[in-house]
Amino acid sequence: MSHNSFGHMFRFTTWGESHGPALGVVVDGCPPDLPFDLALVQRELDRRRPGQSKYTTQRKEPDQVKVLSGVFEDDRTDGLRTTGTPISLIIENVDQRSKDYSEIRDKYRPGHADYTYDQKYGIRDYRGGGRSSARETAARVAAGAVARQVLSGVTIRASLVQVGPHKIDYANFDWDQVDQNDFFCADAKAAEQWAPYLDGLRKSGNSVGAVIEVVAEGVPAGWGAPIYGKLSADLASAMMSINAVKAVEIGAGFEAASLTGVENADEMRAGQLAPYFKSNNAGGILGGISNGDPVVCRFAVKPTSSILTPRETVTTDNRNTDIVTKGRHDPCVGIRAVPIGEAMMACVLADHFLRHRGQTGRDGPTGFEV
Amino acid sequence: MSHNSFGHMFRFTTWGESHGPALGVVVDGCPPDLPFDLALVQRELDRRRPGQSKYTTQRKEPDQVKVLSGVFEDDRTDGLRTTGTPISLIIENVDQRSKDYSEIRDKYRPGHADYTYDQKYGIRDYRGGGRSSARETAARVAAGAVARQVLSGVTIRASLVQVGPHKIDYANFDWDQVDQNDFFCADAKAAEQWAPYLDGLRKSGNSVGAVIEVVAEGVPAGWGAPIYGKLSADLASAMMSINAVKAVEIGAGFEAASLTGVENADEMRAGQLAPYFKSNNAGGILGGISNGDPVVCRFAVKPTSSILTPRETVTTDNRNTDIVTKGRHDPCVGIRAVPIGEAMMACVLADHFLRHRGQTGRDGPTGFEV
Amino acid sequence: MSHNSFGHMFRFTTWGESHGPALGVVVDGCPPDLPFDLALVQRELDRRRPGQSKYTTQRKEPDQVKVLSGVFEDDRTDGLRTTGTPISLIIENVDQRSKDYSEIRDKYRPGHADYTYDQKYGIRDYRGGGRSSARETAARVAAGAVARQVLSGVTIRASLVQVGPHKIDYANFDWDQVDQNDFFCADAKAAEQWAPYLDGLRKSGNSVGAVIEVVAEGVPAGWGAPIYGKLSADLASAMMSINAVKAVEIGAGFEAASLTGVENADEMRAGQLAPYFKSNNAGGILGGISNGDPVVCRFAVKPTSSILTPRETVTTDNRNTDIVTKGRHDPCVGIRAVPIGEAMMACVLADHFLRHRGQTGRDGPTGFEV
Amino acid sequence: MSHNSFGHMFRFTTWGESHGPALGVVVDGCPPDLPFDLALVQRELDRRRPGQSKYTTQRKEPDQVKVLSGVFEDDRTDGLRTTGTPISLIIENVDQRSKDYSEIRDKYRPGHADYTYDQKYGIRDYRGGGRSSARETAARVAAGAVARQVLSGVTIRASLVQVGPHKIDYANFDWDQVDQNDFFCADAKAAEQWAPYLDGLRKSGNSVGAVIEVVAEGVPAGWGAPIYGKLSADLASAMMSINAVKAVEIGAGFEAASLTGVENADEMRAGQLAPYFKSNNAGGILGGISNGDPVVCRFAVKPTSSILTPRETVTTDNRNTDIVTKGRHDPCVGIRAVPIGEAMMACVLADHFLRHRGQTGRDGPTGFEV
Repeated sequence: MSHNSFGHMFRFTTWGESHGPALGVVVDGCPPDLPFDLALVQRELDRRRPGQSKYTTQRKEPDQVKVLSGVFEDDRTDGLRTTGTPISLIIENVDQRSKDYSEIRDKYRPGHADYTYDQKYGIRDYRGGGRSSARETAARVAAGAVARQVLSGVTIRASLVQVGPHKIDYANFDWDQVDQNDFFCADAKAAEQWAPYLDGLRKSGNSVGAVIEVVAEGVPAGWGAPIYGKLSADLASAMMSINAVKAVEIGAGFEAASLTGVENADEMRAGQLAPYFKSNNAGGILGGISNGDPVVCRFAVKPTSSILTPRETVTTDNRNTDIVTKGRHDPCVGIRAVPIGEAMMACVLADHFLRHRGQTGRDGPTGFEV
Repeated sequence: MSHNSFGHMFRFTTWGESHGPALGVVVDGCPPDLPFDLALVQRELDRRRPGQSKYTTQRKEPDQVKVLSGVFEDDRTDGLRTTGTPISLIIENVDQRSKDYSEIRDKYRPGHADYTYDQKYGIRDYRGGGRSSARETAARVAAGAVARQVLSGVTIRASLVQVGPHKIDYANFDWDQVDQNDFFCADAKAAEQWAPYLDGLRKSGNSVGAVIEVVAEGVPAGWGAPIYGKLSADLASAMMSINAVKAVEIGAGFEAASLTGVENADEMRAGQLAPYFKSNNAGGILGGISNGDPVVCRFAVKPTSSILTPRETVTTDNRNTDIVTKGRHDPCVGIRAVPIGEAMMACVLADHFLRHRGQTGRDGPTGFEV
Repeated sequence: MSHNSFGHMFRFTTWGESHGPALGVVVDGCPPDLPFDLALVQRELDRRRPGQSKYTTQRKEPDQVKVLSGVFEDDRTDGLRTTGTPISLIIENVDQRSKDYSEIRDKYRPGHADYTYDQKYGIRDYRGGGRSSARETAARVAAGAVARQVLSGVTIRASLVQVGPHKIDYANFDWDQVDQNDFFCADAKAAEQWAPYLDGLRKSGNSVGAVIEVVAEGVPAGWGAPIYGKLSADLASAMMSINAVKAVEIGAGFEAASLTGVENADEMRAGQLAPYFKSNNAGGILGGISNGDPVVCRFAVKPTSSILTPRETVTTDNRNTDIVTKGRHDPCVGIRAVPIGEAMMACVLADHFLRHRGQTGRDGPTGFEV
Repeated sequence: MSHNSFGHMFRFTTWGESHGPALGVVVDGCPPDLPFDLALVQRELDRRRPGQSKYTTQRKEPDQVKVLSGVFEDDRTDGLRTTGTPISLIIENVDQRSKDYSEIRDKYRPGHADYTYDQKYGIRDYRGGGRSSARETAARVAAGAVARQVLSGVTIRASLVQVGPHKIDYANFDWDQVDQNDFFCADAKAAEQWAPYLDGLRKSGNSVGAVIEVVAEGVPAGWGAPIYGKLSADLASAMMSINAVKAVEIGAGFEAASLTGVENADEMRAGQLAPYFKSNNAGGILGGISNGDPVVCRFAVKPTSSILTPRETVTTDNRNTDIVTKGRHDPCVGIRAVPIGEAMMACVLADHFLRHRGQTGRDGPTGFEV
């Protein structure tokens, strides 16, 4: 048991507070002798990095990652390679401005973990939310970038599909659009409409929630495990562990409740080499095990709790008061949750890839007569 | 790592196939010297038991539970008490009718795990779905009944809140109604309307999905853990691990995506002894830690995949065919998921209670000057 | 965390008390589609079974094992095969004679866990030692017999190498002798001399300790893991977890303390296909990872604590008294520890085989240009 | 599962190679709101630090520890306090001299993990042994220093009790002597005699093994757990995981094999408040659970494998050669293993303290009528 670790065979442990000297992650169990691309890790961190548009917090963190262990290079390895030992990645905190947070020492911010940390631990690093800050997600993104390097043949992408009440139109869905707008949104038209909407919210000192869809293509049939090791259960845990997430669904998700059995069960047809499914209500997972179709997961992020509108709250000694969270915050934390969701998907899949290989001795499915 | 275990300090491991001789659960880590009520375990199993109305499978399983270890009674203990050693519970399979399932040996049932088990393992106990059968959930319910005995002061209840497109009216919500109808539904009027709807589906050889809401009251502030041990993440994993579940949400859930920060963050007020929240969009969990409010979790169950309507599928050697799943099945597996959801909630809470006590030395919150 | 489980990928959980209705084990993570030989499991249990000579307890337990899940047979599998799901094995307790133990309800037996269980749990199933009884080891032996079926190409054998002060002469060492005497002893001459010695101890109501050596041949180089997952660390834990074991060593073990570096380090030479070692002080493990040589582990078992000679002790309410442990006990529990040691070796190796395969994608070493 | 982590509730993860930029440890699960004494961590590291006498390696590492997370100080906390979140400790490598190790790139050092790492991973950071270097133990010592702060009332000390064939005389045993000589030896006379012996070995380019005894006083009865979570099993794993350790024993250890039941079982007498034991052959552990007596553990360290005497070995492409390990090494690595053994004892006890508290709700034993 480890509150700050995730995964089993591909297992990472994160540490660090929002306003401490640094944060980091230790990735244990990575397969050995893989090319290790530190630039790829940095690229993923840059996607999550704050301050890149007016829709995300203006905190200026370069989020420069350093690798301290677990990789090796000599004249025979042609670049860095993993050694199979723990990969320690560290990111220094630079722009901390601790004085911004002095007020929250004595008041609980509604929607934040201030009150619950105090109730659990009897002590709380209140500077920027301490351990409960979304800065922790940088460490996840770094772990996810390592996981991607383990998953050859698997493509993991995500898109913001809803901001507040405004959903995308799947008819416009185009993965190539995701990096063309400030919202990681695959629907260019929706992104255009969201811009003034979010601008308005930001100016009025308000915020809004969002829904992210993460899709993994190229996952072979057979990953996952029955019962409590279900791929879907681990994805649910992974996404729900992200800050501010309140809901997770796989495939048809909550919509499946409204479907009949005739509508819902994905019918199968014989393919050239293997069967295929006529639809993907299952989201690529049946009985907790991947079926070869894209793995589809959506999760909802609540609106940023740090807002400029005054809210009623109490002091740490239980007296009524109001609070305005100044600091520097995202009007929609859901935006930056896009690369984070991808990272968690990658980590879950890397873990299940290794678990599957360990138990069965195969990388993929048992296969048809191929 | 263990695919068939759940929890850390309160940890259970289930085993058994649908048509094997028996199924069971081993509960490890239960606190010692608690009164052990075997009748309570049986009562919970009876609630989940098939064949109790025409809306659930007609398989006749008495689901009689026996306790094989971990409890002790002598003239000084006044009834059975837990000893702190593993509690082994076993339920024999009685009404197996294996011949019903001979057809599915050679065909994959759409929506079932037949194909994925074959792809993962290269072998499959096809009788009644083998390990992937919902019969495994009897073992969870037994574990949950043990967990309830660990959780003094906590009340865990659940209700079916949606069947197909038909949702309950929360204005009618009354926990006392749950055991007064065939649907574990807290809205008596909704239950009345669902009866003919489900009857029609059943007669037409179809099925439908559902949504279940589980609520735990009396959970003190401070249970749960940051980051990957979040109470919400463990609940998400717990519920998603139940057969046929495709979505999980906490508190406002997916609805939170549509809310603004002003609407969503639950404001706080000073109470007599401790602060309280003016609303519960958080579902009782902030930053992964309980805040003292009821813990509220909803999950969606897809429609039963075993239906009498013929569906297109393939044979195990990749040829096109049709299938009609005869067997004996629930038109809405969501109904029996109600006690299962309660059981998983109980197991998650019992685990976090012990974890919290271990790390902090306290049962509940740090408390105000009480 | 689970006090009653062992292993990670090949993980088993045992349950049951000495005088409960049954005991058993659930093996999770077993590779799928392996032939499952229940007779082999029974054979191993028969080796550990009590009452087979006058040197072991006269309790009459048939130790008949039943398999309740995780294996499958149809006309295409040609006998039982593993399915990859949990294998549940159960053994009923038959010859319990609970009245033999009525005295120990109120007194602590020196050398037993009576006092510590009471101090930990505040309750104790005193019948035959309850959970702390060596009957639990039957479950380990069953798990070990499953592990052997996972380890093709690996031969695991053990011998009693010391009884009281009397050690074997390694010059006489012959594995074929192990099943030819009552002591699982590879030195036939030593066994002859031990017989009257142990007879004398038994008749005088006394007992004695022993040392067991377990050897695994055919383990490829590369199993194990660095640091806390060392093969040697897991073997130490495995053997020390056996009832009455107080010491464990690998290769030269404690003797290594007396050696110089020149004497101890096993020199290497180029072999036809791969290097080989000129000696095996390492016991087949370097840096926690197997080196291809036989894995050699020895452990010491203390003398049976249940003896007919009266010993000073206290009552459960802290008053001085004496105790004579009647019951039916082994004069040297070390004898029956031989198959138990083999079983634990098998379980550790099976686990590390799967872990190695998971992380590296290979069953064995990276290999030379073979 | 995590190869580089140890413990369950008090769980630490180490990372870093001998010649990488740094090494470190993340301690997860530490109780909150404890005073955190960074100077104590540094003091323990200083005890283990190389280069403090001519009997340890001359590598010059300041081993200056920095704390990056998990502790907090403001004007109300009166010094650093733990927050219950992961404590990340880092130590930079300074004196690396990588060129010393260029030869070992192409040759396997006998007694080292070079060959097995290559066989397992197919790649190896050969600089100073990489991950298999004893430098990793600095991270353990740091974790142990945190564990000590969790264990109020428990005193953990260790002594070198054997160097080569030379054992201490327990009649001279005096804990106060341990820090008065270069060998952490409680027998001042033995230490005097060891000095010229080790000097001679060092000068002749040889090395020797050693035995360390670790004793924990003040451990209440009731810590530990039955079966696979035995305190003794976890100590065995902890000590065997230390570099170069080949044997572990508890209490009478291997000597118990030679004892009779009459001699071995520690008799009990009624004490004022609780029973006590007349002897401690059990080493403070019965049935895997502490009995209130001092917990006594000994372990053997093999001689340093890096010696100046040429040894036969092979090249990485399987050709015969000789090797002399130049580098800077300890003539007896057992000396520096003394604080490392203490650290591992502290970590095991801290973990079991929290596990016991979690399951039972008590810090110590159930107690007599106190």
